[in-house]
Amino acid sequence: MQFSSSLLENAVNEFAKLPGIGKKTALRLVLHLLRQDKNEVSHFAEIIAKMRTEIKFCNRCFNVADGDICSICSNSMRKQDVICVVENIRDVIAIESTQQYSGTYHVLGGVISPLDGIGPDQLNIESLLQRVEKEKTEELIFALNPNIQGDTTIYYIQKKLPGSHIRTTTIARGIAFGGELEYADEMTLARSLQNRLPVESYVAGK
Amino acid sequence: MQFSSSLLENAVNEFAKLPGIGKKTALRLVLHLLRQDKNEVSHFAEIIAKMRTEIKFCNRCFNVADGDICSICSNSMRKQDVICVVENIRDVIAIESTQQYSGTYHVLGGVISPLDGIGPDQLNIESLLQRVEKEKTEELIFALNPNIQGDTTIYYIQKKLPGSHIRTTTIARGIAFGGELEYADEMTLARSLQNRLPVESYVAGK
Repeated sequence: MQFSSSLLENAVNEFAKLPGIGKKTALRLVLHLLRQDKNEVSHFAEIIAKMRTEIKFCNRCFNVADGDICSICSNSMRKQDVICVVENIRDVIAIESTQQYSGTYHVLGGVISPLDGIGPDQLNIESLLQRVEKEKTEELIFALNPNIQGDTTIYYIQKKLPGSHIRTTTIARGIAFGGELEYADEMTLARSLQNRLPVESYVAGK
Repeated sequence: MQFSSSLLENAVNEFAKLPGIGKKTALRLVLHLLRQDKNEVSHFAEIIAKMRTEIKFCNRCFNVADGDICSICSNSMRKQDVICVVENIRDVIAIESTQQYSGTYHVLGGVISPLDGIGPDQLNIESLLQRVEKEKTEELIFALNPNIQGDTTIYYIQKKLPGSHIRTTTIARGIAFGGELEYADEMTLARSLQNRLPVESYVAGK
């Protein structure tokens, strides 16, 4: 791409560094911003700079937070002795959006994946084990992606858990709503047969 | 979407205002920036703010420019008496990228479209007519999108041109390279038959 302005070129190159944004999309975004009001664009730039410097990570669950403790951990209406273990912040937002969960979270920051060089030490696992012990957690719900790395991580944490007073569960794996049986992979179908539910509990939505 | 941080929510909402960026993509971009180095993110924010305040539009051709006159208009190696009339800056970049054009441009800022309330007065047409007269332009090449609005705009400008010393052309319309005849619309196919080229000029790439 040939630019007649180096400022434009710089801006396009910066946007093109974002994931999933190519040069053409970057140019479209920059030209859109150029047409916007000056104050609006400087507000946008401020928000970006502010976000990076001011967003913190919760000391307890490693979710994003505006202060030292996130709004979920500091909410006394939520069951503080139930922890949902997730891979990243996007998963927290996805689960929160269901409005069906009233416990807390623990963001691992990834899953164990030896091929990518990610071991337990790179993840927030030690802090989870300490938290479970200190807080006398009742239930640990693993909401990790259903693949080998997720299962390995569950297995590793399960082994390390102190004592047996704690209940551990994983979210159900099965055929998604709107999914079609014939296109489901064998493993999902096999597991959903193994873990079949009584019809009355399914109908009641329990 | 439920956020546990208002800073995160603000940043996602700002990104989601960009064209073609939904909430999920915005979240992905924001979380990507959160993982980047602080200096890099503040540099990104600076570039955005700077771009909006410092990018100017060329006084002569209305292309983006770092100063009062763009780098194409101030380049003495380019044929200053040939003007390629385009709709917007993206078209300038597209034509520049072919490296086949050595004249100048005139960015109209849109095309005549009564349905959208865009008349000749909202576009840089008057300045084009003045420029043609003042600079004794030799050739005007219309590189507008081949649709009714583009054709109306060409017709309008053609009618307004002073005298008849100036040569006016439009870029060729036809079947694109890699395009397939059977999927071409009737109008394109009809025009490409009407404006057929002698094979020798086609082969020589003239």
